[in-house]
Amino acid sequence: MSAQEDKLTNSLEALARVEDDIDVVEKEVEIIRLRKMAPLYELRGKAITGVDGFWKVVLSQHSDFANYVRAADLKYIDCIKSIEMKWMCLEDNKLDHRNVAISFEFDGIDGDFEAQIVTKYFKIENDITKFKYTGKRTEEDDLRDGELGFLTSEPCQIKWPKSFNNINPSLVSDKSTAEGKKNYRTGMKSFFSWFKWTGLKVGKEFPNGDGLANLLADDIYPNCTKYYTEAQVDLEDENIDDEDLSNGPIELESSGSGSDENPKNEPEHKKRKI
Amino acid sequence: MSAQEDKLTNSLEALARVEDDIDVVEKEVEIIRLRKMAPLYELRGKAITGVDGFWKVVLSQHSDFANYVRAADLKYIDCIKSIEMKWMCLEDNKLDHRNVAISFEFDGIDGDFEAQIVTKYFKIENDITKFKYTGKRTEEDDLRDGELGFLTSEPCQIKWPKSFNNINPSLVSDKSTAEGKKNYRTGMKSFFSWFKWTGLKVGKEFPNGDGLANLLADDIYPNCTKYYTEAQVDLEDENIDDEDLSNGPIELESSGSGSDENPKNEPEHKKRKI
Repeated sequence: MSAQEDKLTNSLEALARVEDDIDVVEKEVEIIRLRKMAPLYELRGKAITGVDGFWKVVLSQHSDFANYVRAADLKYIDCIKSIEMKWMCLEDNKLDHRNVAISFEFDGIDGDFEAQIVTKYFKIENDITKFKYTGKRTEEDDLRDGELGFLTSEPCQIKWPKSFNNINPSLVSDKSTAEGKKNYRTGMKSFFSWFKWTGLKVGKEFPNGDGLANLLADDIYPNCTKYYTEAQVDLEDENIDDEDLSNGPIELESSGSGSDENPKNEPEHKKRKI
Repeated sequence: MSAQEDKLTNSLEALARVEDDIDVVEKEVEIIRLRKMAPLYELRGKAITGVDGFWKVVLSQHSDFANYVRAADLKYIDCIKSIEMKWMCLEDNKLDHRNVAISFEFDGIDGDFEAQIVTKYFKIENDITKFKYTGKRTEEDDLRDGELGFLTSEPCQIKWPKSFNNINPSLVSDKSTAEGKKNYRTGMKSFFSWFKWTGLKVGKEFPNGDGLANLLADDIYPNCTKYYTEAQVDLEDENIDDEDLSNGPIELESSGSGSDENPKNEPEHKKRKI
């Protein structure tokens, strides 16, 4: 090996070591951030209980959320009274900072849907032998997931609305008929099937379950107040258009003391019509 | 005001206060992150000096960078030997964490382009009366910039390549002729005009100067090793396609101990053909 090649190899090795240290620091900083945020998220959760329909407005405002669920689910998603997240790394620094428990509190609908609180746990895995169906997986998928980890979850119990009895996968008795198969598949795409999602049966369970979990944990939950405020501003604009200001919504005041992040980093959004 | 309206108003006020506290914490955490990164970025910079053409590869690999500059600039951008950033908040916690100094070290090209080190300072402002041309600005722009702040910069001296004499805005003697005007405008779009960018003369100076500064500070600089590695992998793939492995590049090894961020957050990229 020439002296020049030697120098290059040494430099690239040094660079790789620095990169590993940078990853460790990013992880540490993320845990610091979550630790500082936890009491604020708790205060925020308390304030939200005084704002009827807060999560309905937030989830309607978000452009991407509706893509993960069926239109028929929205009626029950509107019943969500609270969403809370608990990052597991705050109890044990050794766990991955992406491990999270997401809790939903649902209001009920008489005769159709039971009020309930449901918590789903998500955990990063690196062991690719845990996949139960691998038909749709490539060698590249395995390499990446083994290295960076992949999201998994325990199936969790949720009571489905009665109106979904015909598509509820655990109630579809005969999957061999064309109609049974269709209903089963429809039910698997429902938001309620996401609660059974494991991340280990690609193509055989709720699609993009990890995408929905990440959307909630990385965007909707941290930015919920921004989405709520945007929805109110949009509503106000519509009311001004209608020349009817008498019943305008109360706008959420923000002192906005220039402490915001770069405006270019604002979450993208547009409104689903309610 | 009814008791219900009262409760809503109180809750929204509480929510706004929490949101302000969240913004403060985000800012604090960003300063913690930059402080922890500083020594690692210094080590990284030292390692990079041993990798010839590192920044040329990184800036070629990045899909978006080339959109900010003229194709004719690329020859000189390939002369960039080092890029370093110094976040001003590390010296005074009171400053905005987005205030940054970006330094470029250029190799020279005999008879055309002088080797030089140039540092450009960027600073967040909130005083919208500082804008010198406001023709293209809307009331909404003013409200947003006054609240969230906007990026500004001191013009800084850089020696242009001689081959650009005809478009160098400070050398275009007669801007009243059609050719003079055209050359002046072409020169204003050159990467070299970015060094004169102030952020206060929208439409009258280098376009999207803040976009380029943010791209460098928020993406290219923090992720440079990832872009370099991707370029090497792409090059290796091309070499495999050519069935010529003998001169394959040395791949940057990374232990990749699952400590990476969510792979979905990886910077987007594709290659500019060199």
